[in-house]
Amino acid sequence: MAGKIRVTVWNEGRHEQRKEAVKALYPKGMHGTIAGFLSQAGMEARTATLDDPEHGLSEKVLAETDVLTWWGHGYHHEVADAIVDRVQQRVLQGMGLIVLHSGHYSKIFKRLMGTNCSLKWREAGEKERLWNIKPSHPITEGLGEYFELPNTEMYGERFDIPEPDELIFISWFPGGEVFRSGCVWYRGNGKVFYFRPGHETYPIYYHPDVQKVITNAARWAAARVTIDTSKAPKYAPLEPISPKPVDMSFVKKD
Amino acid sequence: MAGKIRVTVWNEGRHEQRKEAVKALYPKGMHGTIAGFLSQAGMEARTATLDDPEHGLSEKVLAETDVLTWWGHGYHHEVADAIVDRVQQRVLQGMGLIVLHSGHYSKIFKRLMGTNCSLKWREAGEKERLWNIKPSHPITEGLGEYFELPNTEMYGERFDIPEPDELIFISWFPGGEVFRSGCVWYRGNGKVFYFRPGHETYPIYYHPDVQKVITNAARWAAARVTIDTSKAPKYAPLEPISPKPVDMSFVKKD
Amino acid sequence: MAGKIRVTVWNEGRHEQRKEAVKALYPKGMHGTIAGFLSQAGMEARTATLDDPEHGLSEKVLAETDVLTWWGHGYHHEVADAIVDRVQQRVLQGMGLIVLHSGHYSKIFKRLMGTNCSLKWREAGEKERLWNIKPSHPITEGLGEYFELPNTEMYGERFDIPEPDELIFISWFPGGEVFRSGCVWYRGNGKVFYFRPGHETYPIYYHPDVQKVITNAARWAAARVTIDTSKAPKYAPLEPISPKPVDMSFVKKD
Amino acid sequence: MAGKIRVTVWNEGRHEQRKEAVKALYPKGMHGTIAGFLSQAGMEARTATLDDPEHGLSEKVLAETDVLTWWGHGYHHEVADAIVDRVQQRVLQGMGLIVLHSGHYSKIFKRLMGTNCSLKWREAGEKERLWNIKPSHPITEGLGEYFELPNTEMYGERFDIPEPDELIFISWFPGGEVFRSGCVWYRGNGKVFYFRPGHETYPIYYHPDVQKVITNAARWAAARVTIDTSKAPKYAPLEPISPKPVDMSFVKKD
Repeated sequence: MAGKIRVTVWNEGRHEQRKEAVKALYPKGMHGTIAGFLSQAGMEARTATLDDPEHGLSEKVLAETDVLTWWGHGYHHEVADAIVDRVQQRVLQGMGLIVLHSGHYSKIFKRLMGTNCSLKWREAGEKERLWNIKPSHPITEGLGEYFELPNTEMYGERFDIPEPDELIFISWFPGGEVFRSGCVWYRGNGKVFYFRPGHETYPIYYHPDVQKVITNAARWAAARVTIDTSKAPKYAPLEPISPKPVDMSFVKKD
Repeated sequence: MAGKIRVTVWNEGRHEQRKEAVKALYPKGMHGTIAGFLSQAGMEARTATLDDPEHGLSEKVLAETDVLTWWGHGYHHEVADAIVDRVQQRVLQGMGLIVLHSGHYSKIFKRLMGTNCSLKWREAGEKERLWNIKPSHPITEGLGEYFELPNTEMYGERFDIPEPDELIFISWFPGGEVFRSGCVWYRGNGKVFYFRPGHETYPIYYHPDVQKVITNAARWAAARVTIDTSKAPKYAPLEPISPKPVDMSFVKKD
Repeated sequence: MAGKIRVTVWNEGRHEQRKEAVKALYPKGMHGTIAGFLSQAGMEARTATLDDPEHGLSEKVLAETDVLTWWGHGYHHEVADAIVDRVQQRVLQGMGLIVLHSGHYSKIFKRLMGTNCSLKWREAGEKERLWNIKPSHPITEGLGEYFELPNTEMYGERFDIPEPDELIFISWFPGGEVFRSGCVWYRGNGKVFYFRPGHETYPIYYHPDVQKVITNAARWAAARVTIDTSKAPKYAPLEPISPKPVDMSFVKKD
Repeated sequence: MAGKIRVTVWNEGRHEQRKEAVKALYPKGMHGTIAGFLSQAGMEARTATLDDPEHGLSEKVLAETDVLTWWGHGYHHEVADAIVDRVQQRVLQGMGLIVLHSGHYSKIFKRLMGTNCSLKWREAGEKERLWNIKPSHPITEGLGEYFELPNTEMYGERFDIPEPDELIFISWFPGGEVFRSGCVWYRGNGKVFYFRPGHETYPIYYHPDVQKVITNAARWAAARVTIDTSKAPKYAPLEPISPKPVDMSFVKKD
């Protein structure tokens, strides 16, 4: 791909304004932190939030976006359906999408999955150990056989998703649960990656391995596809065909 | 499964009223023909159409439906979103769904796939040969290595769908196209089967092999699942956990 | 399927003869215990062991077998390649195969997977919790959202297998590991299920949930397929073709 | 990946010596032609043939190979099993493998698939049209919605392979058959691509679109993975575990 990878980092951006603890932890917002480490990795990262006009996701912004990352939690229902339609079409056209943590319940993720995307959860600051199930995948480049996060919110199975096209991580939690924490799906021309870790009150997006995964995933998901397969064209035959009268011999109308 | 399989055969049901040729071919509607051969196969088949109250798909009807078949073509947009929501939830809960022919563009199919479900098409009464790619699958029971339909509308790739969980049929058309004509996906607790053949002006649903496939698919898709995985419950640990203070050692706010 | 499901329960059968503890736990051999509960579930279960002539897997026995279960551990290399060929062909023809525990390293499983099937392990009598990832699958019928085994050998990821066609169970271990404990693959006309639990020194095959899974899996995997897709026939065209001289226009031999 | 992609182009290499027509068409062997266009695309391509010592696939050669391409037809059985073992292990370790045309019956391909890899065939110089099912995949970069080969040997379904992890091409033949002509599987750390076109008596490997696909596939499959997942290590617990006496409460030896 010629030029820098262009990432738009989307965040609700409200917890950071409304909760002191979150503001203290992420003074530039989680979007600011994420855009920061992606920029340092050589990408062109901009941010967009729920309260921006068109949620910061105008046609122009999306057209200039190779990968969109999505963090939402408490305000999924405030995302306008027209914007969800637009993002979905852009993914199907070829833009990569990285859905983070509680984004599992976002409209765009549920739209692309077709399922409820429900799961179990617990906020107890537990350790999480993410096992690397696909060590040769671009998303896991540079990781070992597992990595650990000292404090996270727990998500547990059954995660109501379509069987992933590629299963990248499975998480272990001390409370006794497991979770498919890194999942890949292909939708239209676009690549979708769901990555579980992340909670606004834990310093997840500062963690070096989390940053590595999101950076790897952005590189992997970035694409500039020019083929449009969204239309249903009437199509002339490529080979000569000879129309025949309709065969009704097997019709029994009883 | 105890008792008869309960199938609801859904159809727009308007072509049969508005076009003489379709009425002549399917005097009881395509839904009537389909329900007829499913009944003869020992199932309890009822019908429902677009113009029925709630499109014939009340909560009660769906609760009593093990498998829903869906045929739509010209009026997808008239299907109420609330009913689509309801059907989707019932599929995720475990009801089987068989989507027929131009139903590829129905709201419910696009909802469950997350993609545009676009394709190429041509209405020239061509032959179709469906190759049996999974001869050991319940859906192909009793079929040979292929079967032919003397006159059909052509659908051609690329079909904009998620990679099927199981690919059952690939079609050959004399005009030079191919198509993934029988595809299986799992969504939530439900099974989804897309089956390509069928056009209102050809006697597709009278064809013995088409009837065999739809009958097989109904048997395969029928389920009465009692597990509910639609919720996201807060979940107490199954093992003792010992909360620790949040580790901030790797945080760099620059 | 007409008549009873015919299962052949294969076991090395040597640990039970050579180790007192195993003999005491499984006086009829693990194969005897497994065949016992399958018989009680209404199947026709016979046993076969490594030291039987042809390992108990003659052409005749396999021809009369709908599902084969496989337990091996210390003597994989003593299984004759000719018998492995025979079992493989029978699976591809349609027989179900259920591979148990240390059978992950059997010749037949590695043959069907094409990978090393390696994993981490520890024998410390730990608890195992198996999360039910596919609650609507026939293999999990009657199970809750998870089940526990009080004492097992641990197996940990990364399990070197092809991405399963269906992932049924993920295990949690107190020592910090996870494992894809129940995996489905389709090979030829046959169904393959790998089920992790089981160790000769723990009473795994007496556990009601383990018995339920193996019984469900045998019902699911049983098949009598008559289609033979093992040959590569020369095939006459189904449509008229008109041979043309070979087009050499793009050949550049530099 | 630092440095040039290193490809080893393997060919039986006998048809070119024994049949005048093949020698005339491919004076440097098909391997020479393939290595030629890969070199022109900037890769470091070497060749190896059946009659070379160790079939040209020494430990050293394989260690220095990022991608291996494989063409075999009449002499699959002469490939030594020890070399097949070696190539398989190298694929599982991370080397890419591109299997061409009649290589579907090679030992290495059948080893990695676990199935018979059988298919229908006809040598009549027919046209082949390959439909691009995954236009956003690296393997199809630069291709349109289909491409055509004026003269090929026909291969028809059912192709006895495991369901591909990604289906890239479906072929249409004028005689009435279809074929999954481009298929991707992941095995261990390695990527495998099967590409159907190619016959020694047609100028397939001179065709610009065939060259494009093989070149794209080599770029996609090339990898230098350092993680070894071939071993089954005994593994110490990552979390403290407290051994308990074996629970025998559910044992019923009848």
